[in-house]
Amino acid sequence: MIKFSFTKIVNGELRAIDLENSVNQDITTRVLKEIAKDSMGGWLALPKKYDVGELVKIKEAAKKIQDESEYLVCIGIGGSYLGHRAVIEALNPKSETKVVYAGNSLSKRELDKVIEEIGDADFSVNVISKSGTTLEPAIAFETFKKKLIEKYGEKEAPSRIYATTDAKKGTLHDEAVAEGYTRFVVPDNIGGRYSVLTAVGMLPMAVAGVNIDKLLEGAAEAMEGVVGEAAKYAWTRYTLGGEKNYDTEVFASFEPATMYFNEWLKQLFGESEGKNKQGVFPAAVIYSTDLHSMGQYMQDGRRDLFETIIDYPTDEMNEKVVRAVEIAHNTGGIPVLSLKPSSYDEEGFGELIYFFELACAISAKLFGVNPFDQPGVEAYKAELNKLLGN
Amino acid sequence: MIKFSFTKIVNGELRAIDLENSVNQDITTRVLKEIAKDSMGGWLALPKKYDVGELVKIKEAAKKIQDESEYLVCIGIGGSYLGHRAVIEALNPKSETKVVYAGNSLSKRELDKVIEEIGDADFSVNVISKSGTTLEPAIAFETFKKKLIEKYGEKEAPSRIYATTDAKKGTLHDEAVAEGYTRFVVPDNIGGRYSVLTAVGMLPMAVAGVNIDKLLEGAAEAMEGVVGEAAKYAWTRYTLGGEKNYDTEVFASFEPATMYFNEWLKQLFGESEGKNKQGVFPAAVIYSTDLHSMGQYMQDGRRDLFETIIDYPTDEMNEKVVRAVEIAHNTGGIPVLSLKPSSYDEEGFGELIYFFELACAISAKLFGVNPFDQPGVEAYKAELNKLLGN
Repeated sequence: MIKFSFTKIVNGELRAIDLENSVNQDITTRVLKEIAKDSMGGWLALPKKYDVGELVKIKEAAKKIQDESEYLVCIGIGGSYLGHRAVIEALNPKSETKVVYAGNSLSKRELDKVIEEIGDADFSVNVISKSGTTLEPAIAFETFKKKLIEKYGEKEAPSRIYATTDAKKGTLHDEAVAEGYTRFVVPDNIGGRYSVLTAVGMLPMAVAGVNIDKLLEGAAEAMEGVVGEAAKYAWTRYTLGGEKNYDTEVFASFEPATMYFNEWLKQLFGESEGKNKQGVFPAAVIYSTDLHSMGQYMQDGRRDLFETIIDYPTDEMNEKVVRAVEIAHNTGGIPVLSLKPSSYDEEGFGELIYFFELACAISAKLFGVNPFDQPGVEAYKAELNKLLGN
Repeated sequence: MIKFSFTKIVNGELRAIDLENSVNQDITTRVLKEIAKDSMGGWLALPKKYDVGELVKIKEAAKKIQDESEYLVCIGIGGSYLGHRAVIEALNPKSETKVVYAGNSLSKRELDKVIEEIGDADFSVNVISKSGTTLEPAIAFETFKKKLIEKYGEKEAPSRIYATTDAKKGTLHDEAVAEGYTRFVVPDNIGGRYSVLTAVGMLPMAVAGVNIDKLLEGAAEAMEGVVGEAAKYAWTRYTLGGEKNYDTEVFASFEPATMYFNEWLKQLFGESEGKNKQGVFPAAVIYSTDLHSMGQYMQDGRRDLFETIIDYPTDEMNEKVVRAVEIAHNTGGIPVLSLKPSSYDEEGFGELIYFFELACAISAKLFGVNPFDQPGVEAYKAELNKLLGN
């Protein structure tokens, strides 16, 4: 199970700081109850309450997509995009079908690149949007729907479209029902950035060859095993970021393939905590690349940042770099936190996802903000709609 | 030519702030003289002083590599890695030879992935290291040298190795001379993070299909045309970061393909300015993806960050998103700086590289630190060597 530690240099050696008294148990218990009761707290019990029928349906759809298509175009943005990409890139599983991504920007250059990569190959589309009205995925979906119709005809095209959307209402839901797309549900009680273990992430991951049963198992084990460690981590970052004014957290990984997992973390914490003109600013580095770039800053720049190393199980040589960094950055005056996942596979990432979701929700509560809303995102959407004239 | 602007909302509309008085001309002139005289200031005149013989040799080597190999394995870390990757990913040029990267971490997982991708295909190796002793590239080079010998034999293997290293001394230089590798020079008066327009970056870029003549032309035009804009940008960020305590700069791009250019920027500024326990912390986002993730933080988190939009020429719809973000984030209380490159092609990136190198050097001088050293990077290297027992 994941281990959290907070180290300091004592007499030239790394020592774990005793965190027994860092957690206020009463407040933690209250906060956990609030999360469980929250209308957006559905992810909390998800790993053990998974709808078996849904899981079977996801696997069947994944099998059909693998049989029929060389590419699955995953169309989604933010929480409908980052989670599954993070797991797929980290695990790099084998599959006959390659997952590619669209609708996460409005760049025509980027859209053209995906179209060029697919070329004449067979493809299917998974469009992921709660409402169906978010601009970026809506535009990409129109493009690829047209391409499906050109290639397979009006009759066959809908059988290659998989819509992950609201269960009962919305533009995409209504279209999916009318056209007969295979449908999956974005639950009402789970927000985008907490949705990777719902159909939002599970279908693309299954198509890419991720063992989603093992992923769920890891998350289910974490439900029982990581609450204590998640609370320690949440309280430590609250103490650093809140009381001691270390206002930037740098997530550090030594596995380049986890770059998108870092991006998912930035979304999770940034969107959950960045409210009311406060919040720890989340940043990320990949070592040792960034030791030869941002490393200078980490060693000797502003001292109001702390570093959270995700210490993935790795080979012996890379492990030495991890220790060297812990010592060097501690010596440079940076608080160094460390999270050690139990394995680098589906179970390990299942644990890790659940751990971070839980820790982030607790932490946001400690900082006094709602972990599950994102009013600020609406501000840009409103400005964009004004400029587009609707 | 690149335009810099700093906008504010006045009566609900975006207006450019007059920056005429933001630049102290006397100090700027003095600082520019210091940079020109610095022993590491060789990049300043490089675009117009380029060694024509070297350029011809680079193109010949690139042609040979393209003729002989499906893959070029570029081995390097930090400044010997990020610059060319940034330009190649952004421009996505056509070439028969694919450039892949190794030696920028110690992850065995990552190394195995590159080996697997190459499979049985023909390949060449470009090892880029001033000294040849940096651990990460040295290990990767040993691996691929062995693979070359296995595949092509001891006699032919050296003809597929291109060493970009010191002109006269060092482990890699000596080996290259002894074994007869084709050699290119890492100049003594240009540091890693300023080296993208030397052979360090030019050979991989040429192999990938980048028009390196146009890139140099863009940089040469920038030498004459961007000094004023670079000074305005440097003084603006110095005023914000130094006097007003906006201590984090978020580079924002709306083109996903420029993600590695953002990484290059983080290296350039982080390594140049992050010294003496100060410096603006460089972070980066790709919009609109990150508007649906970090967007919340940008809109309503801590107000001690400023945003620098790199406003690449793009299509009309994406352009609207740029304006929407400028308005929304300005309204949210974030100072929004904007850089408009003249084109999204080789010339445009040549300009942009020179612009940022110059602006960063001026800015670091204003902050009172040496833009060209990186003493902090040595701290981790020393710890690692201790742990490795040598």
